Order: sequence, then structure tokens, then C-alpha cells
Amino acid sequence: MPKKAVTSISVQLDNRSYPIDVGADILKTLPTYLIEHKVGKKVFLITDENVAPLYGRNLESVLSKNNYSVTFIVLPQGESQKSFKNVSSLLDQILELKVERNDSVVALGGGVIGDLAGFVASLCLRGINLFQIPTSLLAQVDACIGGKTAVNHSTGKNLIGSFYQPKLTLIDLDCLDTLPKHELKCGMAEIVKYGIIKNVELFHFIESNIKDIAEFTPKKHSAIWRHLIESSANDKAEVVSNDEREAGLRETLNFGHTIGHAIESAYAYGTFSHGEAVALGMISACEISVHLNLMAQDISDRIETLLKELGFGTKIPTIPIEKLLIPMESDKKVKNGKIRFILASEIGKTETRNDVPRELVKSAIQSLFK
Amino acid sequence: MPKKAVTSISVQLDNRSYPIDVGADILKTLPTYLIEHKVGKKVFLITDENVAPLYGRNLESVLSKNNYSVTFIVLPQGESQKSFKNVSSLLDQILELKVERNDSVVALGGGVIGDLAGFVASLCLRGINLFQIPTSLLAQVDACIGGKTAVNHSTGKNLIGSFYQPKLTLIDLDCLDTLPKHELKCGMAEIVKYGIIKNVELFHFIESNIKDIAEFTPKKHSAIWRHLIESSANDKAEVVSNDEREAGLRETLNFGHTIGHAIESAYAYGTFSHGEAVALGMISACEISVHLNLMAQDISDRIETLLKELGFGTKIPTIPIEKLLIPMESDKKVKNGKIRFILASEIGKTETRNDVPRELVKSAIQSLFK
Repeated sequence: MPKKAVTSISVQLDNRSYPIDVGADILKTLPTYLIEHKVGKKVFLITDENVAPLYGRNLESVLSKNNYSVTFIVLPQGESQKSFKNVSSLLDQILELKVERNDSVVALGGGVIGDLAGFVASLCLRGINLFQIPTSLLAQVDACIGGKTAVNHSTGKNLIGSFYQPKLTLIDLDCLDTLPKHELKCGMAEIVKYGIIKNVELFHFIESNIKDIAEFTPKKHSAIWRHLIESSANDKAEVVSNDEREAGLRETLNFGHTIGHAIESAYAYGTFSHGEAVALGMISACEISVHLNLMAQDISDRIETLLKELGFGTKIPTIPIEKLLIPMESDKKVKNGKIRFILASEIGKTETRNDVPRELVKSAIQSLFK
Repeated sequence: MPKKAVTSISVQLDNRSYPIDVGADILKTLPTYLIEHKVGKKVFLITDENVAPLYGRNLESVLSKNNYSVTFIVLPQGESQKSFKNVSSLLDQILELKVERNDSVVALGGGVIGDLAGFVASLCLRGINLFQIPTSLLAQVDACIGGKTAVNHSTGKNLIGSFYQPKLTLIDLDCLDTLPKHELKCGMAEIVKYGIIKNVELFHFIESNIKDIAEFTPKKHSAIWRHLIESSANDKAEVVSNDEREAGLRETLNFGHTIGHAIESAYAYGTFSHGEAVALGMISACEISVHLNLMAQDISDRIETLLKELGFGTKIPTIPIEKLLIPMESDKKVKNGKIRFILASEIGKTETRNDVPRELVKSAIQSLFK
């Protein structure tokens, strides 16, 4: 595959359709896209202090050379940046510079930056142009595709937000080279998820290449990583194209996330990464499926084996069980007070259930306890 | 016309289409609509301290009797409530009560409540059900139709917001009876606007019934007022159905608003109501049109005469002209630094111009000076 090849994946949403362009070293081509979209001269480039020295400064200078007037906004790193207070202060910064409707926000970073900057772009003058440039694997295959934006609230994650589609998502494969292993691992949990919920071919591809993948050296195995990203981005784009507002199909993307989110929020910040929590959530969801006779034991075993080979743990420290159950019961996905579970029946197939007994959820979580 | 007849006007926006139901004494039928929409049991009824005793308490009790769990939120009155701070505190109140996606916000009040409560509903869990019940004439014929929500920012009005459609807009004609004359007058400015920009029949209807209308006694002339409201709501619905996001046609609704907004913001709060400012803005826009040889002098005169007969003033206190020009130049409608003017060429026809010389704008405003 020639290094410069760009794969274009389409998110189909009528007049809000947009492409996800995937390629190596394509970040610096952003001005071409901006010119193509005839955007205004003001660009608000929002990133974090990790990404700023790696890609931000270069991108700023490329944009400036192309006569864009760039406001470079660098935020501290971390989930705590996804606050309503930050939304307010970013809006202040942008509005005070007399932004116009045709000006743009460029979100350069991981999921936190994508969610926050995307949300801000959606609110500013009821929506200005948004360009998503995800630099983490997790953002590339999940968070930055599909137009969900949000910040956190004291009562839960992502409870305040909007649906807002970018004009373009640009995935630069070279960004993988600067990612630490734990970030790659985090993204791999979501990639495995796509395999389980809808893409048997992808699941088999991961099984077949597990040794190479588990090295987490994307530079060495670039064709494998490119395939993982393209397949996953394509899977997500397909789901979103069919169900933007999560009326049904899009819900399946929450596989592993119901218990996963609870684990993420119940332990001290940083105990489990999103990917680790989702991996644990997928293991629990499989256990529930097996108990409900929905899934055969050997399939559950295959999934657990794959996750172990990728380096994911299968245990969590014991804590009072209510600490895990309560956040689940106040999640957005709760309907009429009942928790909705996405369960897999086999590789590539899911079922949505809201009749999982609380006791079964409890025992599935308890079997994760060390 | 039987008193109970309900007219249903449709806003056509694919899967976000919704009806505007107009009728006398239909406020109390809200539970029927909620049941029809199968909404969740939690209802956040947001209103202001003027409307609460008139309609809010009754509506709360009707909803409670139908087994909805109502959180009744009463805000102080006035434009200053449209703040980002209020959005934050309303979201806190709603999220702390563990709102679910299928729960609802009911916005009961004028444009301020509609804009603020609608915005909050759009952000909460990325959008919960919204029911708009406009109680002011201005909100009934304009603000509450079409899904624009927003709050103000220190740099300008309505600069932070979203496009978010309600499930239903319910216009109760009986609300007119409790409106003071100046509120009815305020709404009339927008009704005249629909006549000028797209509805010759409506303009003629107003001219023919000007004496009865200028009494501002909707109870006495209920058929006339019903026709004014239905025609205007229908005009707005048609525009929005064709151009939700203001890519073109919807812009024409800004006729009279460019200079109007500037007047509203340049003088001390309360000097000019929105309607008074829009009436003045329409007079200025006509003057600009006449100067550009776009409109005949006699049409401009007819419009000014009609507005005078409705009791609108045609003069503003002299202030430094820049105080009026600067807000115009930082408006959302500015494109590439140029002010976009909606100008009428004749009754029922508009043109969008971004080449109006600054000097002409200046002289049109100066001729409003006392």
C-alpha cells in the first residue's frame, strides 16, 4: 500500500454527511480541506498540552502559512477538562473574537478534546464549522466519529451535550507512533467490541494477528493497524449512518459499556482506563449472556482469551457492590427505571435486553472481584 | 367558528416534524398529548413568575392529576434570565432528579422561557422531549416556532444556542386575554413583518381590519386575532420547513431585525420593546430600499402608515451613531465582515443584500433621530 493513499469512509446523514479520511502523514493537508469547504478565516485550534508540542504547533504554522487567523487554545490534559465551566470559558474566548458562522473549530486531540471542542462548536452561534482530528486510537475508532459531543456533570459522565456532526474527520495514522502502549490498548478494547457486535471478519482478523497486535508497535505492523482502524471507523460510520440519535442500532455500541462505565466511575480516577473498564464490562456482559443461555460458553471463553492476550486484566478490587450498581441505575441508557443491556449472542450479533435480573448483574460483577 | 376547534399547522422536518396546534382553552389538554407521545413520568415545567399564577399552577395540577411527577420551576421575569449561568443551574436541577431520555421539559411562557427552557432540553442527555407552550403573542407567532433556542452573551444576543425542535407547540388563544396591550403590540410588529416578507393576503387583511386590530382587544375580535395568529404561525412554519438552519430562506425572517436589534441593545434596557425596535428597523429597511431604488416610495409609506396606526413610534433619541453601528457589525448575520440586509422590494417580496453602503445605513438610522 503506498504510504500516501487516503481511504475515505462516508458517514451518510443527508445534508450533514461527511467523510472520514484515513491516511499516513495527512495532518498537514488540513488547509486543502478548509479551502475546499470555503470556511472563514478564523480558526480556533483546540488541543491539550500533550498534543500541542507533538502536532499542535506544526498544524498552527501550516494554517497560518495558508493565511488563516489561528487562535491556538491549549488545555490541560484529562477527563476533568470536560466541564460545563470550560465550555463557558471557551465560548467566551471564541465569541470575544467576533467569530462568524462560517469560521471553524479544529479539535486536535483525544476523546476529551473531541467531546469538549465539538460541544463548544455546536453551541457557538448555534453551530460553526467543526473539523475533528483525533490523535488517540480510541478517538480515531470511536469517540470522534458520529457527532456525539458532551461534558460531564457531577451526577454522571456525558450527561450534558449535543449531536453535532463535523464537516470532516481526519485520521492521521502517523499519530499512532507517538501513542504510549496503554493508549493503544485502550483503543483496542473498542476495536474488539466492533468485532463482537457486528464484524465477524474483524474478530477473526484480530484472532489471526493477535501476536503482532499485542506487541502494540503500529510502526512495525502498519498494514495490520491500518486495517484495524479502517474496519472500526467503517463499522462506527455504518452504525451512525443508520441511527444517528441512538433510537436503536446505535445502542449496540454500548456493548460492554454499562458495567464498564460503572467500573470507571466507582474506583479512584485512573484506576481503570476506559479501555480496561470496557474490557471488563464485555467480560461481564458475556457472563450474563451465558447465564441467560444466550451465548455458548466457548464463545465467551474466546472473547476472554483474546482480551487477556491483549493484556487486559479480568479482575477488580472488591468494594461494596452498590457502588457499582448505583451509577448504572442513573445512566442515560436507563428507561423507565430499567437498565438496558446490550448482550452478544454470538460473534457479530447482539440483543438488547431490559429484563436482566438485578441479582444476575450483581453476581456477574461479583465474579470480577479479586 | 366553534370555540373548541383546533387548527393544526405542520412543521415538516423529516423525523423531527411536529404540529403546532392552535385553539381556545386547549392548555388543559396537554396530558392527552403527553400520553400520545408516550413520554416518561417526569415533567419539568419551566415558567416565569408572571405566568406561574395565571397558567402555571393550573397546568401543574392538571399534570399531577394525570400521574406525572412535575417539577415546577419558576424563574424571575425578563431577558436577563437568558444567561449561560441559568442554563447551568437548570441542568443541575434536572440532572439531580435523575432525568431519563424519555422525560420532558414543558416551556410555558414567552420567548425568554421558550429560548431558555428549549436550550436546556436540547442539552440535557443530548436532548429530552420538549413541549412549547407560548403564552405571549410574540412567542406564539415567532419565537417558539422553528427550533431556535439560545441564551445571550456579553458580546451579543442569542450567541449561544442550538437548533432543537419540540415534539409539539400548543398555542392557547385564551392566553391573549391576559396580555397587556404593549405585549400584543410587540407581537403585531412580527405579524406585519410576515405580511411584508411573504404574505400579501395577510398584509391586506391587517390594512382592512386596522381599526379593530389597533384596539388590541382580542376577546372582542377573536376571529380576527385567530386569523392573525394562524396565518403568522403558518408562515413561520413554512419558512422553517424549507430552511431549518437558516441557509437562505429563513434569513428573510430577519427583515427589520438588523437595525432593530441594534436599537434594542443601544438604549437602556426597556427603552424599546422588541416589537417597537423591529417596527423601527422595518421603517429604516424600507428607507434603505427606497434609496436603492428597490422599493417604491408609496409602498414604504403604506408600511409606515400601518405601523403608526398600530401605535408604533417612528423616532429614537439621538445618540452617537457608532453605538448603533457597532452591535450590527458584530451580529451573527455578519458574513466576511459585511452586514447582510434583508430588504423588501414590494409587499410579499424580499431581497438579501450585503452591499448596502455603510453611509446609507448611517443616514437611514439618522433619519430616525428625533
